Amino acid sequence: MVYITRKEHFNAAHKLWNEQWSQEKNFEIFGKCANPNWHGHNYTLLVTVKGLPNPETGFVVDLKALSKIIKDAVIDPLDHKNMNLDVAFMTGKMASTEILTVEIWKQLKHHIDALGCKLHSIKLFETDNNSAEYFGD
Amino acid sequence: MVYITRKEHFNAAHKLWNEQWSQEKNFEIFGKCANPNWHGHNYTLLVTVKGLPNPETGFVVDLKALSKIIKDAVIDPLDHKNMNLDVAFMTGKMASTEILTVEIWKQLKHHIDALGCKLHSIKLFETDNNSAEYFGD
Amino acid sequence: MVYITRKEHFNAAHKLWNEQWSQEKNFEIFGKCANPNWHGHNYTLLVTVKGLPNPETGFVVDLKALSKIIKDAVIDPLDHKNMNLDVAFMTGKMASTEILTVEIWKQLKHHIDALGCKLHSIKLFETDNNSAEYFGD
Amino acid sequence: MVYITRKEHFNAAHKLWNEQWSQEKNFEIFGKCANPNWHGHNYTLLVTVKGLPNPETGFVVDLKALSKIIKDAVIDPLDHKNMNLDVAFMTGKMASTEILTVEIWKQLKHHIDALGCKLHSIKLFETDNNSAEYFGD
Amino acid sequence: MVYITRKEHFNAAHKLWNEQWSQEKNFEIFGKCANPNWHGHNYTLLVTVKGLPNPETGFVVDLKALSKIIKDAVIDPLDHKNMNLDVAFMTGKMASTEILTVEIWKQLKHHIDALGCKLHSIKLFETDNNSAEYFGD
Amino acid sequence: MVYITRKEHFNAAHKLWNEQWSQEKNFEIFGKCANPNWHGHNYTLLVTVKGLPNPETGFVVDLKALSKIIKDAVIDPLDHKNMNLDVAFMTGKMASTEILTVEIWKQLKHHIDALGCKLHSIKLFETDNNSAEYFGD
Repeated sequence: MVYITRKEHFNAAHKLWNEQWSQEKNFEIFGKCANPNWHGHNYTLLVTVKGLPNPETGFVVDLKALSKIIKDAVIDPLDHKNMNLDVAFMTGKMASTEILTVEIWKQLKHHIDALGCKLHSIKLFETDNNSAEYFGD
Repeated sequence: MVYITRKEHFNAAHKLWNEQWSQEKNFEIFGKCANPNWHGHNYTLLVTVKGLPNPETGFVVDLKALSKIIKDAVIDPLDHKNMNLDVAFMTGKMASTEILTVEIWKQLKHHIDALGCKLHSIKLFETDNNSAEYFGD
Repeated sequence: MVYITRKEHFNAAHKLWNEQWSQEKNFEIFGKCANPNWHGHNYTLLVTVKGLPNPETGFVVDLKALSKIIKDAVIDPLDHKNMNLDVAFMTGKMASTEILTVEIWKQLKHHIDALGCKLHSIKLFETDNNSAEYFGD
Repeated sequence: MVYITRKEHFNAAHKLWNEQWSQEKNFEIFGKCANPNWHGHNYTLLVTVKGLPNPETGFVVDLKALSKIIKDAVIDPLDHKNMNLDVAFMTGKMASTEILTVEIWKQLKHHIDALGCKLHSIKLFETDNNSAEYFGD
Repeated sequence: MVYITRKEHFNAAHKLWNEQWSQEKNFEIFGKCANPNWHGHNYTLLVTVKGLPNPETGFVVDLKALSKIIKDAVIDPLDHKNMNLDVAFMTGKMASTEILTVEIWKQLKHHIDALGCKLHSIKLFETDNNSAEYFGD
Repeated sequence: MVYITRKEHFNAAHKLWNEQWSQEKNFEIFGKCANPNWHGHNYTLLVTVKGLPNPETGFVVDLKALSKIIKDAVIDPLDHKNMNLDVAFMTGKMASTEILTVEIWKQLKHHIDALGCKLHSIKLFETDNNSAEYFGD
């Protein structure tokens, strides 16, 4: 079993805001991340898949195919977008790195199964210092 | 003459949009950077100053003092903000990396003169692949 | 279960020296790391915690709270210090990356339990090329 | 149990080419990676070993000894070489990152056992965006 | 005047070899860089242009246009190629980082003039530790 | 004229301390950098030389020769040392990044002249955020 990781990037705006809470409580809990007019990040996404290398190609997965799936299902919907307003799979969800990591897993899971390998983890850097990782359970 | 560079970071939302143009022309010229609901970046800022090392300290400039000036004049106004809507010194200006670099120079110039050294350049990375640099003329 | 990683930095002096050994044996085993007048490093610390995202915040942990714990228990005692002489939790211990990683785990474990999440791993880079990681057993 | 990771580098030429296939099929499957006159990469290799710190040294492993083993068994055979033509342990094998990662494991396994610690994983970056990792099964 | 830098990447094989010299002398002067079967690198290219920001766009240059010029004139000819054998503008030239940097300047100069800005420098990293830069004279 | 940059690393201990001042004033001016028992850094050194490429080799300078000069004159004296106590060329000087950058220039200047190229600049990173650069006047 070999693990393959592909790194991709997207830039997006967001804010942390709980609609059930007062503005005061949002500012208290989320601090400057609750700025009403949004802020944004360069996100770095690491998608790790695992499988046996195909003896004819030496590949666990064709990286061009994997990269295209990630682009179509995750990068295009998120890149240069506002994740609270523009992204169907984030509608009504908290725009934290944690939740985004789990939702990216859900977008990719069955497409990657269809490539004949298994999705192992999604790791997402919001900044160079803060990241979240999800293994599917 | 020794050159000292201090690196700082901020995260902000923006869009590229010329108010004199139709929506159609904005999308044609700025592409996905014109997304109406904004997008955002982790900006990396490099401030370079020059001067003679003080023989008593070995310092061209006290980096704690330099860092505080950058924080007060640039990072606090921009960090976790929307640079088109929330930032006084960017009001009515195009939110490109180029213009932002020049405006950051203007915010810092006389504060750094007051420290007894000279501002040499402002370099700003919008992403790891795209940066602008300004030397004051 | 989502894993969250926070990166922090500290700068410290140390030497590798076994008090039970002759100077000759220390030089033989530890080479230039045994320099009697110390040397030092910029250490990079990665603290990974795990838990379920809180549905109200989307957070596994409030990163400001996590960062404050790391600062109080680890960064402040170590930063700009000599880890053989100035750091209570390293007194009488070998100042290797391995031992330091385990001792940082001990400093953080119960504080992180008190935040309602679980400490998963401590990873410490002594240089860009050398790192140690500890998972608690 | 503490995990220690050592990073090393090598530069090599390769191409992806299956001798059982027509030129046409090689180009179709491997794209520009099948360029007949080769292309190349700066590879970054991460070797992770695990063990208990020796109480006399604080070391899981002497990193100078580990680095020498990696140099003799992996870096010297691969560095500034053509991995399809010049490297005994890659002869007749597909020169994919996956296969190379597994073969590097085989080169290092018993040498690292002989140091008194256990090889945990081999991670290999072909580019900053593409990497493979192998844990021995 | 603002300076804009765009970073791009390519992977290529090469060797250092002077056809006027004996094999012995080539090995003596170029060492392992003269390996007859080639070796290779991940090259990182930094193209810096300068100009006045256009008041309507805030741009010194449209980075999509600049990136397309670099791709067509430099990246496509070099990427996944053997620079001694496959690249028209390197034919009969020494494949050193220095010469390659100068030749990339020549490929880009008039295309960038045609964009209405000026080419300032070409910087090329062969590895993370070795780079060359050329300013046109 | 082509500019060549070589990156090297060293790890050292130091403190900032002016012997003419009281302990109180040293702590006031230098803060935690005045810790009496030292602290330390991983320094990154960038040496830039300039010259015309030799038509027979394509080289401005043989990087193996340049690297050896840097190693002998700068890295070996500083690496795994205390720069206030162990380094002849820093004796009696403030151990700031600025002063160290100038002193490294002095160590290298005539050795690099002897290689037939010109020393252009010395850039030294004390941390990822703080650096100094010196051009010889």
